[in-house]
Amino acid sequence: MKLATLDDGTRDGRLVVVSGDAKTATYGPVKTLQNALDAWSTHEPALRDLAHNLDAGTLPEAFALDLKSLRAPLPRAYQWVDGSAFLHHVRLVRKARGAEMPPSFLTDPLVYQGGSDTMLGPYDDIAHASEDFGIDFEAEVGVITDDVPYGVRAEDALSHIKLLVVLNDVSLRNLIPAELAKGFGFFVSKPPTSFAPFAVTPDELGDDWRHGRIHLPLEVHWNDAPFGHPNAGVGMQFGFHELIAHIAQTRPLGAGTIIGSGTVSNDLPDVGSCCIAERRTLETLESGAPKTPFMRFGDTVHIDMKRLGRSVFGPISQRVVSREVSR
Amino acid sequence: MKLATLDDGTRDGRLVVVSGDAKTATYGPVKTLQNALDAWSTHEPALRDLAHNLDAGTLPEAFALDLKSLRAPLPRAYQWVDGSAFLHHVRLVRKARGAEMPPSFLTDPLVYQGGSDTMLGPYDDIAHASEDFGIDFEAEVGVITDDVPYGVRAEDALSHIKLLVVLNDVSLRNLIPAELAKGFGFFVSKPPTSFAPFAVTPDELGDDWRHGRIHLPLEVHWNDAPFGHPNAGVGMQFGFHELIAHIAQTRPLGAGTIIGSGTVSNDLPDVGSCCIAERRTLETLESGAPKTPFMRFGDTVHIDMKRLGRSVFGPISQRVVSREVSR
Repeated sequence: MKLATLDDGTRDGRLVVVSGDAKTATYGPVKTLQNALDAWSTHEPALRDLAHNLDAGTLPEAFALDLKSLRAPLPRAYQWVDGSAFLHHVRLVRKARGAEMPPSFLTDPLVYQGGSDTMLGPYDDIAHASEDFGIDFEAEVGVITDDVPYGVRAEDALSHIKLLVVLNDVSLRNLIPAELAKGFGFFVSKPPTSFAPFAVTPDELGDDWRHGRIHLPLEVHWNDAPFGHPNAGVGMQFGFHELIAHIAQTRPLGAGTIIGSGTVSNDLPDVGSCCIAERRTLETLESGAPKTPFMRFGDTVHIDMKRLGRSVFGPISQRVVSREVSR
Repeated sequence: MKLATLDDGTRDGRLVVVSGDAKTATYGPVKTLQNALDAWSTHEPALRDLAHNLDAGTLPEAFALDLKSLRAPLPRAYQWVDGSAFLHHVRLVRKARGAEMPPSFLTDPLVYQGGSDTMLGPYDDIAHASEDFGIDFEAEVGVITDDVPYGVRAEDALSHIKLLVVLNDVSLRNLIPAELAKGFGFFVSKPPTSFAPFAVTPDELGDDWRHGRIHLPLEVHWNDAPFGHPNAGVGMQFGFHELIAHIAQTRPLGAGTIIGSGTVSNDLPDVGSCCIAERRTLETLESGAPKTPFMRFGDTVHIDMKRLGRSVFGPISQRVVSREVSR
């Protein structure tokens, strides 16, 4: 089942159920995706009925879906937690600055608390005051949970994963070193994150959803040129159920919590990267210095994940633009 | 004007307007405080009318207020950002480990992105799986904003502060060093934060709200013994307007964003502390080792801020209890 949020002029948009071919949609039984997640077991049967009838073509109220009218599945959320579970990426970044990855990283997940008050839609501009921020994309996969109890075990956490998502965790690379040096993590260096239009139930992926991981390549194009297509099921040190167990050690997680995988990255030649920083790191390791610049105003990034030739989550397609700040 | 959220069995509770003497209340014109903040300029006049009539005793629908029925003003929020603006506290902590505070801390605010999916009410238990986490309270003041534009200037940010709050930013001290050493900030070491029952408009404080700071003592009792009463207007290096300008440098802030001051701390003898960690630091500086243990199951913490002898925000009064985790 594919769900999405239509722009209806309100802050939280309008929940729609989307057909398997992404051509038609119908309004959900509750107004917003957050409403559905707040009582998932109550609403899931009605949502699935709508999805079934939509695919069968038996819903007179179905309408043609305009992708451009869709926002992030949760245009604002109560929690966004991003992991860094692809350790190849972590290892590379450390290696480039002459440091080893601590062995504890193999067993103790790295996460940060992200900002969730403003989630960008799949076609929203990435608008910033300066190119000097070092604007970078980070293509990731993620999950959305229902209520997760304090201290949940990893094996019990899988059942709390209700939806899967694809996202672009935009980073302002040139602001990161000074901010992390302050010791409290990211804030100014992590502006709003963007989401692919469809949040899908795990069964949509068949066997490609297993061990709490999405076993499909994540395709990234920068300015229409292929940039990377690593598989999100390869090299993810912790499954999403393990990330959930980690973050729920000392707190419950509210319904609608979004958890990201971190930048998808494979330790394989020729698959490319999901962020510019990783390519720059490879260049540094190869020749002593990065060659590829970060994004410039006018640049575009396109992120998609396909299964059997069809986009599962719908594409992310964004442009970097200059934001005027009135001062 | 005092606002609060009544427990009505729903996730977000029911907005109430509270009388100046905190004895009576009436339902707000919209269901939740988030609803009010989403369109503050629309709803503020009706809220103020209700407050006025409540104080005049001319509202037949007014009811007696039971403090114990109140939750956090925002039981879940879209954003919670905590500052660390009382530099005396930062200086002490660094001194105890033999480090200097970087001079940039005088001009560049320190903040972290906190978890906002679950906010504890003023009388909720602080329930954790182990005393070994090093459970500590942190008494702070905070503000709640409406929509704040990207790149707002500090002088323009003041007008976006709609409500003031008092909070207990619970910390798990023994989990902090290892987590911060990973480099991505707090997560597991910062469980849900608790809030005093009333969110109040700045005019409630008269001249005690000035320069983006609350100039009143914050009173903390641990197990009914006085622990500290530093003034929240003294030694706050950055006013809330300056914290807002800092965090809005690269993103807008959504309505209902809560921003904390960090642990209130004065560089004055005899005012005590707002968290146990600070007292332990003073003990370490004095005698080489901390003497005061962190909180134990059964311990209580009481936080209040009074003006002209009256509690402004209502008291926080919490007990630390053991949480069973089914494994």
